[in-house]
Amino acid sequence: MRSALSHLQCSDCGREHDADRLQNLCECGGPLLARYDLEGVTVTPDEIARRPRGIWRWAELLPVRDDARRLTLGEGETPLLNLPSLGLPGLVVKDEGLNPTGSFKARGAAVGAARAAELGATHVALPTNGNAGAAWAAYGRRHGLDVTVAVPGAAPSVTRGEAAAAGADVQVVDGLIGDAGRLVGRAAAARGWFDVSTLKEPYRVEGKKTMGLEIAEQLGWRAPEVVVYPTGGGVGLIGIAKAFAELRELGWLTGPTTRFVAAQSSGCAPVVDAFERGADDVEPFPNPETIAYGITVAGPLGGRQVLRALRAGGGTAVAVDDEDALATRDECARGDGLLLSPEGAVAVHAARVLADRGWVAGDERIVVMGTGSPLVQPELLPVPTGLIARDGELRGHG
Amino acid sequence: MRSALSHLQCSDCGREHDADRLQNLCECGGPLLARYDLEGVTVTPDEIARRPRGIWRWAELLPVRDDARRLTLGEGETPLLNLPSLGLPGLVVKDEGLNPTGSFKARGAAVGAARAAELGATHVALPTNGNAGAAWAAYGRRHGLDVTVAVPGAAPSVTRGEAAAAGADVQVVDGLIGDAGRLVGRAAAARGWFDVSTLKEPYRVEGKKTMGLEIAEQLGWRAPEVVVYPTGGGVGLIGIAKAFAELRELGWLTGPTTRFVAAQSSGCAPVVDAFERGADDVEPFPNPETIAYGITVAGPLGGRQVLRALRAGGGTAVAVDDEDALATRDECARGDGLLLSPEGAVAVHAARVLADRGWVAGDERIVVMGTGSPLVQPELLPVPTGLIARDGELRGHG
Repeated sequence: MRSALSHLQCSDCGREHDADRLQNLCECGGPLLARYDLEGVTVTPDEIARRPRGIWRWAELLPVRDDARRLTLGEGETPLLNLPSLGLPGLVVKDEGLNPTGSFKARGAAVGAARAAELGATHVALPTNGNAGAAWAAYGRRHGLDVTVAVPGAAPSVTRGEAAAAGADVQVVDGLIGDAGRLVGRAAAARGWFDVSTLKEPYRVEGKKTMGLEIAEQLGWRAPEVVVYPTGGGVGLIGIAKAFAELRELGWLTGPTTRFVAAQSSGCAPVVDAFERGADDVEPFPNPETIAYGITVAGPLGGRQVLRALRAGGGTAVAVDDEDALATRDECARGDGLLLSPEGAVAVHAARVLADRGWVAGDERIVVMGTGSPLVQPELLPVPTGLIARDGELRGHG
Repeated sequence: MRSALSHLQCSDCGREHDADRLQNLCECGGPLLARYDLEGVTVTPDEIARRPRGIWRWAELLPVRDDARRLTLGEGETPLLNLPSLGLPGLVVKDEGLNPTGSFKARGAAVGAARAAELGATHVALPTNGNAGAAWAAYGRRHGLDVTVAVPGAAPSVTRGEAAAAGADVQVVDGLIGDAGRLVGRAAAARGWFDVSTLKEPYRVEGKKTMGLEIAEQLGWRAPEVVVYPTGGGVGLIGIAKAFAELRELGWLTGPTTRFVAAQSSGCAPVVDAFERGADDVEPFPNPETIAYGITVAGPLGGRQVLRALRAGGGTAVAVDDEDALATRDECARGDGLLLSPEGAVAVHAARVLADRGWVAGDERIVVMGTGSPLVQPELLPVPTGLIARDGELRGHG
């Protein structure tokens, strides 16, 4: 299996860059994206379907060149699950909580760490609200990299423990993820670490692209009408859109132009605000606060790209209150046995809002991204009370 | 796809029972096991390999008859992961933490709840150290069942929250899982609930059997020399052994007779004690205490079956101290990026002990079951300390 990676291209100014050395941003400050020689790709979807499971089935469309770097912890191949009790027959949730380390971040780290190691990095650093840190710690160690993680003091503590257990240097910052990102940038420059912050290197998004590759295959190579994405940094959304674009160029994907939906929490909705204002880029959201900590990103670097992806296909952006998200989470768990993370619940609730508005029709296919495991924030789970003596008697139901 | 289920058979007295009505134990008190008309199975391994992923690929070898009951939350299809830094090239971990609800218990609940619903149960009840309760709550709700869970007060709290979020009635018992099991038995009898305690109904073990079916397929239909199983109730071990036996009868599985290893914590090692004494059944372990809460089962009902499975293939039983298990957990996470649950760490450490003793040879294939997610017990993860000001500076690497 041979990667078709040809070069990097700035998503803002369009300038091309060498793909085979470590790169961060373009000189213009824009994020770099991987480009492939798609005309030279000769593998077929059937061949890919017969390969051993996992994201490396898509090797031609991923940037890693050395087969020995295609290491796995079992990431990818997540299911599309229906939620019959919601009454939206076209809706399925892609349950990314079943990934190693508990979130879709495993995909970005699997590819990002492999490519960083392949290109000679020895120490990577990133800011994180938690899931990305846990993922990079694990995949970093899988590739023998040292990992430094800077995490906001208010972020969930479980993922810090995951990262620290894998030997990452976890440093807690008295601020938000933007503050942590600035500290990472300065330290990386001073110490020679490779800065793998969201979109500051080109390959995390390639890993997240595998969500889109899998969705296309799972839906029989017909694009869904709608993809709803719980949007913090928004790299997953950019990645899925990139997957669909590449698959269409290959001639593998047909069907409608997908409308992408950025679902955000009302307490941190910079993309929704910018979308509604008709702006080209986001402005930092003041005093962000939501239980959906994974999408608490006040000023996402990829805001411009996300807005472009939303508008390109006629998509939209929806803000959801925490209490509505939790109510939907409980409804899905009690009705269908699927316990979503708060971020996933924000996205499912956004889909319900759009259905209520008539923005999606009953027979349209809606893929909602459930980005992580509910186990990362156990403090949001209910706590049963009461204690029954060992020689006592159980209560009847409710 | 048609289940080949033919009848149930008592694993103690051998008496046969009707499979198509709800059944608990045999009159003699022995657990019932599902038996299949394997001669009538015409599907081939190749056909199974081409079916959509998930445990229901194995429908012929599972007890559920109604296709509409073959519901999924994405369980099964877990990877075999190597741990190069351990220096045991034949060792792989089957990472069951990637299942829905965070453990292999999802498999047992997926099949058990489907079959209970298919046979007319409306309310199921079980004692649990946590993972089984979370799994049965989810799959119970997937099938529209009411679920009552009785959990020891000292069990990890995260899984209680999972179960409660899915609408299960979670009742905390001031005692151990044996005490919770007695309360469930009494309440089930009094209230007409179906008691789905470990081995008290025949189908959880069939779900867990899918671990063995997958291992056989993943290893190219050649049985591994050794399977190491972190043993509490021991149903997973019984299930894997049952899978291998059925696959050999079908003629699909070749290779060596697998030696099964029961790995237990020194703080709760009734199977190890019985094995070393040469006893036919376990005796309750006094004052059990270990961080590996999932295998804190002082008097497993299936002890007799586990001991039989160990001895049948020339297997053994190993007790591991908590501190050794944690040291091995940290080594695997730091060396290879795989963060094990404490139960998985007990099993990997047991494999290392057996390698040190020369009980396994360097070229033998050892499959170690990593039964759950480390996120279920976040209190066992390290806690990073210190707080860096938002205008401060990150530390260099330790």
